[in-house]
Amino acid sequence: MAFDPVALKQQYSTALTEDILPFWERHSIDPHGGYFTCLDRKGDVYDTDKFVWLQARQAWTFSMLYNRLEQRPRWLEIARHGIEFLRTHGMDGNGMWYFSLTRDGDPLVQPYNVFSDCFAAMAFSQYAQASGDTRAREIAERTWRNILVRKANPKGVYTKAVPGTRPMKTYALPMILLNVLQEVAWMFPAQEFSEYRDSLMDEVVRFFVDPGTGLVFEHVAPDGSHPDTFEGRLINPGHGIEGMWFLMDLARTRNDTALVHRAVETILRILEFSWDKEYGGIFAFMDARGKPLQQLEWDQKLFWVHAETLVACLMGYAATGRKECLAWFERVHEYTWQHYPDPSYGEWFGYLNRRGEVYLPLKGGKWKGCFHIPRTLFLCSQILGEIHG
Amino acid sequence: MAFDPVALKQQYSTALTEDILPFWERHSIDPHGGYFTCLDRKGDVYDTDKFVWLQARQAWTFSMLYNRLEQRPRWLEIARHGIEFLRTHGMDGNGMWYFSLTRDGDPLVQPYNVFSDCFAAMAFSQYAQASGDTRAREIAERTWRNILVRKANPKGVYTKAVPGTRPMKTYALPMILLNVLQEVAWMFPAQEFSEYRDSLMDEVVRFFVDPGTGLVFEHVAPDGSHPDTFEGRLINPGHGIEGMWFLMDLARTRNDTALVHRAVETILRILEFSWDKEYGGIFAFMDARGKPLQQLEWDQKLFWVHAETLVACLMGYAATGRKECLAWFERVHEYTWQHYPDPSYGEWFGYLNRRGEVYLPLKGGKWKGCFHIPRTLFLCSQILGEIHG
Repeated sequence: MAFDPVALKQQYSTALTEDILPFWERHSIDPHGGYFTCLDRKGDVYDTDKFVWLQARQAWTFSMLYNRLEQRPRWLEIARHGIEFLRTHGMDGNGMWYFSLTRDGDPLVQPYNVFSDCFAAMAFSQYAQASGDTRAREIAERTWRNILVRKANPKGVYTKAVPGTRPMKTYALPMILLNVLQEVAWMFPAQEFSEYRDSLMDEVVRFFVDPGTGLVFEHVAPDGSHPDTFEGRLINPGHGIEGMWFLMDLARTRNDTALVHRAVETILRILEFSWDKEYGGIFAFMDARGKPLQQLEWDQKLFWVHAETLVACLMGYAATGRKECLAWFERVHEYTWQHYPDPSYGEWFGYLNRRGEVYLPLKGGKWKGCFHIPRTLFLCSQILGEIHG
Repeated sequence: MAFDPVALKQQYSTALTEDILPFWERHSIDPHGGYFTCLDRKGDVYDTDKFVWLQARQAWTFSMLYNRLEQRPRWLEIARHGIEFLRTHGMDGNGMWYFSLTRDGDPLVQPYNVFSDCFAAMAFSQYAQASGDTRAREIAERTWRNILVRKANPKGVYTKAVPGTRPMKTYALPMILLNVLQEVAWMFPAQEFSEYRDSLMDEVVRFFVDPGTGLVFEHVAPDGSHPDTFEGRLINPGHGIEGMWFLMDLARTRNDTALVHRAVETILRILEFSWDKEYGGIFAFMDARGKPLQQLEWDQKLFWVHAETLVACLMGYAATGRKECLAWFERVHEYTWQHYPDPSYGEWFGYLNRRGEVYLPLKGGKWKGCFHIPRTLFLCSQILGEIHG
């Protein structure tokens, strides 16, 4: 196809405002407070538990769109609906965020997972900007500082690794923090922001972007080397690609062209490595040395991986003009729009098998909520606008 | 096909002694001690970490076959090789079994998983019988008592559920204990054994075998009811079926015909519910109410599920003569022998997608070792002999 940013922008923004958002507006608002995220193909609620990170992600999405797309009062109201639920029920006595709650907000699963905190910080920060609510800002800031305190040992008492035998550094948290930092940056003086930024970018690039293979590793030894173990060999292509657009986005705040190019190069390398040449789509997990994986879902084609790749390719193209970024965008765009949208009931399927067939027809669950897809549609339509303009 | 127990017995016992056992004898013995279990399609070692439950399961298998099939010195030697490794490296200072160790036995993952202890108790008990090693017997007995102490809160400090909000009872541990008890029974006076037995059988039947649906639930409320949540709706067909043959096996020690029939009825019901009518094979997970699952591998066809079903159907047929047991045995037998064996390199594949295609070509890994398949082949050949005789 000929690349037509105007038509594509229209496609992405129409899907956002006429398909995805109305689906969540219609089906996910719980009159008891917070959101239902377990929605079946038709949007009917099939489970009422509330996963804190999905609550936070949805509150973030509506706040962000209010801030950046259009100040629709309904969007702010929906954001507030989640924020109030989280503020009332989401934290334990130490300000750490539970993993999950019952429908009415009773805590179900302890705050063992620091990613709940990451998405809470993002949600409260965006909401504070949208609403001017200073208490929300305080929660965002306190949560950010709490994450930094927990960063060296994020699982705390729930850590199962025996200390010392095989210490490993994990990519997921510094990767997410590249993005969380952008989100909370407005709350900090420029100097404090740039210290966080430089330290996080250095950590991600120095340890996890491997010069030899050009891939992003999920876990590395403290010296950055790659133990020949399940963990040490693990490649999560979606994580790698998503983190590289976070990196690119942040590198641009210090005009670091070299780092932008390094991120783009890494995205392209991961795509070559993890594109399924037989059935199309990007694998969920890979082993860097081609050995068998532990992850039984390794060959599946997950919605968020493809969504994040669309953002990464377009952002890379806009930043560097590299034709390979555009070629990959077009290939992943075609796969994505052919396979994920559900014209019968709206929204997108999340879980396809290797062949691209839906094997879990849910629209939302424990891991899929109102986040990756609307963020992708919004960011792609923005970038397409920039490219055209 | 016409049911031919003599030919089938030959098929099962030949596969055991000429395919499966030689594969593990050839490829899994680590000269440093213990076993390699991460073996690729050809039997080459692709990871050297040692998962305690797989070490224990393999030591159990060779001890058990020495005790019950043939006193081959090589089998006892292989069992001892694993037992010595486990005895030296497997336990923490409190006699709890680590989850995993490095190749040389340094502890990698803490003793958070009581199933390591269950398989260790089985291994040391069988080995004590095979070797007359009284220290092995002491370890088996101490481990059994330790499991009973941990039973009310098996994850201990690693428990993530907030106490009190939604207490649930879980099937997996009492289910496995039905089998562990048979294994350690010889160490206890008859009275003590029958107290354990009656209490465990009562727990499994009263809480987990649901009279309404006839299915076995993985998690229930303390009153046996079924909360309408992911956990409360979860059916693990392989677990259900495996536990029902453990139950049948134990019920026969008190001549409890009614319970044997109940177990058989439940096996048949689970098979009807979870057989894939489109592609054949038994699903890995099901939702009791047909709602979307959390388990991304729900539609896969796992080796152990089919192996345990073969035992359950044959045992049920031998115990009750019910034709449905035989019909299901023949159907699952056909699926299993068509899909799992690997004539090119020996042993069986473990992981098939819904269509029955191999998507992970390993012969052993973190979850698959030298256990379910040889146990199935041995037990089926024994039962086929009884049926014929």
